[in-house]
Amino acid sequence: MDNLSMVTDLYEFSMANGYRQTIDEEQGVFDIFFRKVPDQGSFVISAGLEQVVKSLQNFHFDESDITYLRSLHLFKENFLDYLKTFKFDCQVSAIPEGTPVFPREPMLTIKGPLLQTQLFETLLLSILNHQSLIATKARRITYAAGKRPVMEFGARRAQGPESATYGARAAVIGGCTSTSNVLAAKKFGIPSAGTMAHAWIEAFPDELTAFEKWAEVYPDNASLLVDTYDVLKSGVPNAIKVFRKLKQAGHQPVGIRIDSGDITQLARGARKLLDDAGFPDAKITASNALDEHVIQSLLGEGAPLDNFGVGEKLITSASSPVLSGVYKLAAIEQNNQLIPKIKVSASREKLTLPGLKQVYRLYYPGTKHAFADVIALQDEKLDKPIDVIKANPLATKRDHMIDDYDAVPLQEKVLDATNLKTDLPAVFDIQKHSKEMLAEIPAATQRLVNPDEFPVYITQKLANLQDELLQRDKVFK
Amino acid sequence: MDNLSMVTDLYEFSMANGYRQTIDEEQGVFDIFFRKVPDQGSFVISAGLEQVVKSLQNFHFDESDITYLRSLHLFKENFLDYLKTFKFDCQVSAIPEGTPVFPREPMLTIKGPLLQTQLFETLLLSILNHQSLIATKARRITYAAGKRPVMEFGARRAQGPESATYGARAAVIGGCTSTSNVLAAKKFGIPSAGTMAHAWIEAFPDELTAFEKWAEVYPDNASLLVDTYDVLKSGVPNAIKVFRKLKQAGHQPVGIRIDSGDITQLARGARKLLDDAGFPDAKITASNALDEHVIQSLLGEGAPLDNFGVGEKLITSASSPVLSGVYKLAAIEQNNQLIPKIKVSASREKLTLPGLKQVYRLYYPGTKHAFADVIALQDEKLDKPIDVIKANPLATKRDHMIDDYDAVPLQEKVLDATNLKTDLPAVFDIQKHSKEMLAEIPAATQRLVNPDEFPVYITQKLANLQDELLQRDKVFK
Repeated sequence: MDNLSMVTDLYEFSMANGYRQTIDEEQGVFDIFFRKVPDQGSFVISAGLEQVVKSLQNFHFDESDITYLRSLHLFKENFLDYLKTFKFDCQVSAIPEGTPVFPREPMLTIKGPLLQTQLFETLLLSILNHQSLIATKARRITYAAGKRPVMEFGARRAQGPESATYGARAAVIGGCTSTSNVLAAKKFGIPSAGTMAHAWIEAFPDELTAFEKWAEVYPDNASLLVDTYDVLKSGVPNAIKVFRKLKQAGHQPVGIRIDSGDITQLARGARKLLDDAGFPDAKITASNALDEHVIQSLLGEGAPLDNFGVGEKLITSASSPVLSGVYKLAAIEQNNQLIPKIKVSASREKLTLPGLKQVYRLYYPGTKHAFADVIALQDEKLDKPIDVIKANPLATKRDHMIDDYDAVPLQEKVLDATNLKTDLPAVFDIQKHSKEMLAEIPAATQRLVNPDEFPVYITQKLANLQDELLQRDKVFK
Repeated sequence: MDNLSMVTDLYEFSMANGYRQTIDEEQGVFDIFFRKVPDQGSFVISAGLEQVVKSLQNFHFDESDITYLRSLHLFKENFLDYLKTFKFDCQVSAIPEGTPVFPREPMLTIKGPLLQTQLFETLLLSILNHQSLIATKARRITYAAGKRPVMEFGARRAQGPESATYGARAAVIGGCTSTSNVLAAKKFGIPSAGTMAHAWIEAFPDELTAFEKWAEVYPDNASLLVDTYDVLKSGVPNAIKVFRKLKQAGHQPVGIRIDSGDITQLARGARKLLDDAGFPDAKITASNALDEHVIQSLLGEGAPLDNFGVGEKLITSASSPVLSGVYKLAAIEQNNQLIPKIKVSASREKLTLPGLKQVYRLYYPGTKHAFADVIALQDEKLDKPIDVIKANPLATKRDHMIDDYDAVPLQEKVLDATNLKTDLPAVFDIQKHSKEMLAEIPAATQRLVNPDEFPVYITQKLANLQDELLQRDKVFK
C-alpha cells in the first residue's frame, strides 16, 4: 500500500534537505489555523486529529521512497540517511476534535526539529482541512434538521473512496447519526444505514413483487423506496399492501423513502395514506439533493419527514468545498532560545501570530455561557480585568477590556514524540463533546445565514510582540 | 490497511443478499454515465479507469469484513460464504481514460452476476466521479494557460491525502505537466515540482541570506519565492543578486515565483528588473488562488508569466465540486436471454437508455473532424444514411438524418473476469491521447464559457426499444 508520508509537497523535502545542510540544529514551531469559515459561517468544527496522530506516529519512509527521492538528484545522502531512520521527535498540542473553532485560533501546534516540522505541512493540512470542512458542513445540515436523524449517504459522489470514508467519520462528528458507507461504519463504529435502490425494484417484474421479495428477506427492516414509478399512485399503495402482510405476521414495518419529485407534497400525501391505512408509526425518509437550506425549507413548509439521507452536498461540502487552513511558522528555537516569527505579506489580513500560544474560551463567571476567545502566549498568566485586542488585524475598534471571566484552555497536549498524551475518543463521544461545546456558545453565532460574530481577541502582550516584530521588519509603519 | 471493497453503501450489500435469496441465477448489465457537465462545460474528460480495474481485480473481503457484516444480523450465511470466496466474474467495457465524453454516453458498462454488479456501484462511482471531475477541471485550466505549463499544487487543500494523490494523476490527464505531491509523482511517474515556501525565508535572518543559502544547496534549481516582504523592492532585487553569483559560478538561475498581490503588475515589474539585470531567461511563475478564469484574465492583460502553479481550485474543482455520474441497470439476463430495462422517474430527463450499447464518434468521411456521437445497441450495424434522434429526452427537434460519416467505437473491452483485455497506458500517454481526441472535436465546444453543444444521438432502434419499454410501463403516454 502507499505510504502517506510521501503525500508531501516536493518543496517540503527541498527545504528539509536545505535545513539539513544549513541550520540543522534549529527547532521550529508551526501553527495550523484558518482565516475564513466555509459557507460564511462563524466557526469550524475541528476534525481529523485522530488520523493526524496516527500518521505522525507512523511517519516513515520505505526503501522504495528513499530510492525514488534519490532518483530526483536533489538531495544529499546525509538527508536521505536521516529519512531512512526517521524518528518522530516533536511535541504536538491541539484543540480536541468536535470543538467549534474560530478564525486565527491555532487548532494544532507542533514543535520539533525544523527539518521534521517542515515535512508534515502538506499531510497534516490535507487531513485537517478535509475533515474539519465536512464536520462543519454536517453541523450546518444537522442543525437544520433539528432532532430528526441525518444519515450520511454521499460515498458515490465523494472525491474518492478514502475521502468518502474519512468524510463519513467527520459527518458524524458534525452530528450525523449513521452512514451508508460500510467501511466507515466498520472502521469507526458508526451505525450503517440504507435499504434498497431503484435497481432492486427494476430487477423484478413489478414494484409489488419487488417489495414482497424484500419483505421476505428483511421482514424487520422493510424500509421501501416508493418513487420508482409513481409515489402516491403506485409506491405507497404497494408498500401498504406489504406492510399489512408484515403486520399480520407480527413484524413492524419501518417506513418509506422518497428520492425524487416535490418532497413536501409527496410526503404529505404519503403520510395521509399511511395514517389512513393504520401505519402512523411508519417513518418517511427524504433523500434527494438535500442540504441545510433545502431541509430548512422543507421543514418550514411543514413537510412530515422523519429522517434525512444527505449525499453529495454533505460529503464534498459542495457549496463551499475548501477549508483554507494554513501551516505557519510561529517561532524558531536556537540554542534553547525561542525566537518568535511572523509572516508579513502585502495583505495585512494575512499577518500571523508569533510565538508559542494557547487559546482560552472565556465564560461568564460561574456559568457555561462562553462570550469570547482569547489567544495568549503560552507562558502568560491572564489578568483580571484583562486588556485585549481583536485578533483580526482588519477589525475596527480593536481594543476591549474584559472585567471578569472563567477561562478554559482549548489546546491540550497530544503527542510527545510518539507517546500519546491524551485520549483519542470514539466518534460518538466526539459528537457528544461537540454538542456540549456548541451549547456553550451564543445561539446567534450558530445561525446558518448571517451568524453573529463570536469575538476572538489576542492579549496585549501578544499584540506587543507582534508589533515589535513588525517594527523590526519595517513593513507596516 | 483498509479494504476499499468495503467502500460500498449498505444497501448494495442488502440488495446483493436479497438477490442471493431470490433471483440468484440472473445476470445484470449496468452503465455508468452522467447528465450534467461541471462548470457548464460541454464534456467531461474520463479518468479513473486504472484504479477501477485494479479495484475490481482485487475485489475481495477479509475475515474481519465478513465478521463485521455478520454482526449486522442482516445477511444469511449463504451470502457471507459467497463473499468469503468472492471471485470477480464480470465483463467490463469502457471508454479509455482521457477521452472527452458527453452527457448520457455509457463511460463504463459492466455485465455479470446481478449480485456482483450491484456490489460495485458505490466504489466505481466514487473513483470515476472524482477523477473525471478533476481531469475535466484540469482541462479547463490548462486550456486557459495555452502552451504555458501548469503545475498541480493542491495537496494541502484536497479532500484528504488520497484524494490529493489520485487527483494529481487526473490533473495530468487533463493537461498538467507536473505535481508538487511526491507520492503522486512516484506512484504515477509524474515530474515533481516546487522549490521553497515562505517558511524557508522566515527561518533565516533576512531574505537575502535565505536566497543565498538556497542557491548554495540548489545551484541549478534556484527558483526563488520573492513575495515574503516586498516583491519589487526586496524580493526581485535580492533574487538578482543571487542570480549574478550563480551565473558567475557557471549555473543557470531558474527564475522567481510570485504568490500574492496584483500578479499582473508585479510580474511586469519583475520582468523588467530581470531583463534589465541580464536575466531574460529567468522564468516567472504565478501561484495564488488561480483557476481558468483568473489565468485567462492575467494572460488577457498581457501579464508576462511563464508557468502557473494551481492549487485548491483545481484539486477540488472548487467552482463545481461534484460530478454526478450514476450507475443504472440497463438489462437483466435470465436463461441466456437479455431483457432490456429502463429506469423511469417523475422527471423525463432522467429516463435511461436500455440494453447493451456502444458509443460511436462520427467523423466527416476521410477526416479527423468529429461532428457527433451516436449511441447504438451493441448488436446493431449502423446504416448509411442513418436516422438518429437526440439522446437528451428534453431536446426539441430530436430527429436528424446523417448521410455519410466514418464511425469509431469509443468503448473497448477492459476486463473479462480478472483478465485485462486492453492496455493501461502511462499517464502521459493518456494525456497525449486526450489532446488528440480534443483536437478532433469542434473548437467551439471547448470554450470555457457558453460552449457549443456537441450533438449526441441515439439510433432509431435504441429509441424504439426505449419507447416500447415506456409503453409497457405505461408511465409517459
